[in-house]
Amino acid sequence: RISWISDIVVVVSPENIETMKTIIEKYGHKRVTVVQGGITRHRSIFNGLKVFAENEFSSHLLQKPEVVIIHDAVRPFVEEDIVSKVVMAAKEHGAAGAIRPLVSTVVASAADGCLDHSLERARYRASEMPQAFLFDIIYEAYQQCTDYDLDYGTECLHLALKYCKTNAKLVEGTADLWKVTYKRDLYAAESIIKDNLSQQVCVITNVKETLAQVGFLLPESLKSQIKVEAISMSLSKNDSCLQNILSGQCYNFVCVNDKRWATQETQELVDVLEKSTIPLLYPVVLILVHLDIPENNSFSIGMEDLTTIKKFARETKKKNILVYGLLIQYK
Amino acid sequence: RISWISDIVVVVSPENIETMKTIIEKYGHKRVTVVQGGITRHRSIFNGLKVFAENEFSSHLLQKPEVVIIHDAVRPFVEEDIVSKVVMAAKEHGAAGAIRPLVSTVVASAADGCLDHSLERARYRASEMPQAFLFDIIYEAYQQCTDYDLDYGTECLHLALKYCKTNAKLVEGTADLWKVTYKRDLYAAESIIKDNLSQQVCVITNVKETLAQVGFLLPESLKSQIKVEAISMSLSKNDSCLQNILSGQCYNFVCVNDKRWATQETQELVDVLEKSTIPLLYPVVLILVHLDIPENNSFSIGMEDLTTIKKFARETKKKNILVYGLLIQYK
Repeated sequence: RISWISDIVVVVSPENIETMKTIIEKYGHKRVTVVQGGITRHRSIFNGLKVFAENEFSSHLLQKPEVVIIHDAVRPFVEEDIVSKVVMAAKEHGAAGAIRPLVSTVVASAADGCLDHSLERARYRASEMPQAFLFDIIYEAYQQCTDYDLDYGTECLHLALKYCKTNAKLVEGTADLWKVTYKRDLYAAESIIKDNLSQQVCVITNVKETLAQVGFLLPESLKSQIKVEAISMSLSKNDSCLQNILSGQCYNFVCVNDKRWATQETQELVDVLEKSTIPLLYPVVLILVHLDIPENNSFSIGMEDLTTIKKFARETKKKNILVYGLLIQYK
Repeated sequence: RISWISDIVVVVSPENIETMKTIIEKYGHKRVTVVQGGITRHRSIFNGLKVFAENEFSSHLLQKPEVVIIHDAVRPFVEEDIVSKVVMAAKEHGAAGAIRPLVSTVVASAADGCLDHSLERARYRASEMPQAFLFDIIYEAYQQCTDYDLDYGTECLHLALKYCKTNAKLVEGTADLWKVTYKRDLYAAESIIKDNLSQQVCVITNVKETLAQVGFLLPESLKSQIKVEAISMSLSKNDSCLQNILSGQCYNFVCVNDKRWATQETQELVDVLEKSTIPLLYPVVLILVHLDIPENNSFSIGMEDLTTIKKFARETKKKNILVYGLLIQYK
């Protein structure tokens, strides 16, 4: 995602190495080297650094970088901006790390489990990730580490200070850098992803009068809440418009038609979506709206149509395209 | 909710006092006194304590308690167990507060924005709420406070230590005590509530053969995931069974019938739900499943039925009962 990063070293516990390799292959990630982790945080990071300096941990030695970034997989929402800031600060200061204000006061307890003292909250910060280091500094620090550091330490900035006399630059990070730690954090992460996916919707209608009207009114009522693109149904004839939308970050499509089951058009749309890289990482939602103007007072859609739609949806789901049908009946 | 708490003092900013009073009245909260907050955390807490000792802040002086609990409204998931623990510890030690392990390392920055030192994570804890104090100790501490403490301090345990030489007992709290601080925390809080509401479902069917079968199979397939109660439709004749369920924590009802629109039964069920206190705090979800065995290949439900159901659902929504219809057609 960030082009100026030359190599990505993923440190993984032995039992998850195969799973990680499958993920990397499935999503076509490039520049990635998988390294076996150690039994503590510091031992794992040290293993990751060794692929730039020692042959023992990788079949091919990667080219030693000027700066290395250390990040936690449990902080999935890191933005390029903060990565860039810590890297620039590390180039200047030798080491740098993201920080956040403390949410709670920090207290020290005495041996009897009672309060010894509390820290003045304004003078302290929570140390977060990413952190960046001149490679030579952090590698030197890890080489000089004691076993006690490797087994009980948690803070890379501390190692750079202790063994290389490097006072890391502290860079204010964003709230999204938090560590996904508890079950509730999974809910929060899921919601953030959903929020990001629902920033934009594309409304597709054909040229008939009623539909064109819906295709106009729907975007009008939606656009106060999200970004809306409205295009005409004739995809096969002119899909450069759709291609433009797909190259953006649109994961939501509403397709309005008045046919009982617009098989060909829907299949064409699914094909275009599948060919794009859109459904690779996140699911695409396609809502097929069937406008029904019945002659009598019952539904004009039959059981076999429903069965066909359900079967179609089951197939597209395998391609990470979630198809929903919506029947709107009006008189 | 906790019967041994004699009074609840809610400290609210001046502009929100009326809203708070409306909420207290709407949900029938008892034992609650609303007090105007100050411009900082400590000034607000001090105002809250004054209603037990000074006439200035409340029309009637509340009886001075032996122990006061101080809690943040931004920590909505506090359990009776931890409240009880800090109160017992406060009785013994004079002061007590909930703590949690630190999620991130805490660092001190020097004047130049660089790392001065990092704290050894294992020796420190995050100070959370609730906290409890012997009333005389915390009130004495607030009376002796300087303006600097009142304006810039944040930690009640610190005041008890500084002004009353009381070393608070630190009590390990649960992960749910976290502070709802960022937007993502709202998502997490919402999901925790939803999780709690969906622990149990009640399946209601009538006695006809097909329905009894569904009424048996549905609970069977659900019970590996959630607690399921299955009862028969004849509510009006025997609703002690339903009453038992309502006195529990059931917010979800699935009602299976084969009538086009079981008006009377549904209305009776909604009446029973409304009379219970269940929909007062949280929404009740009622899913009306209409089993449709059509003679020909189209739906046997008509437009007027749909309109009736929609209108009915709109009415019950005002009572915090969310009615959904589900049409299952089988041959």
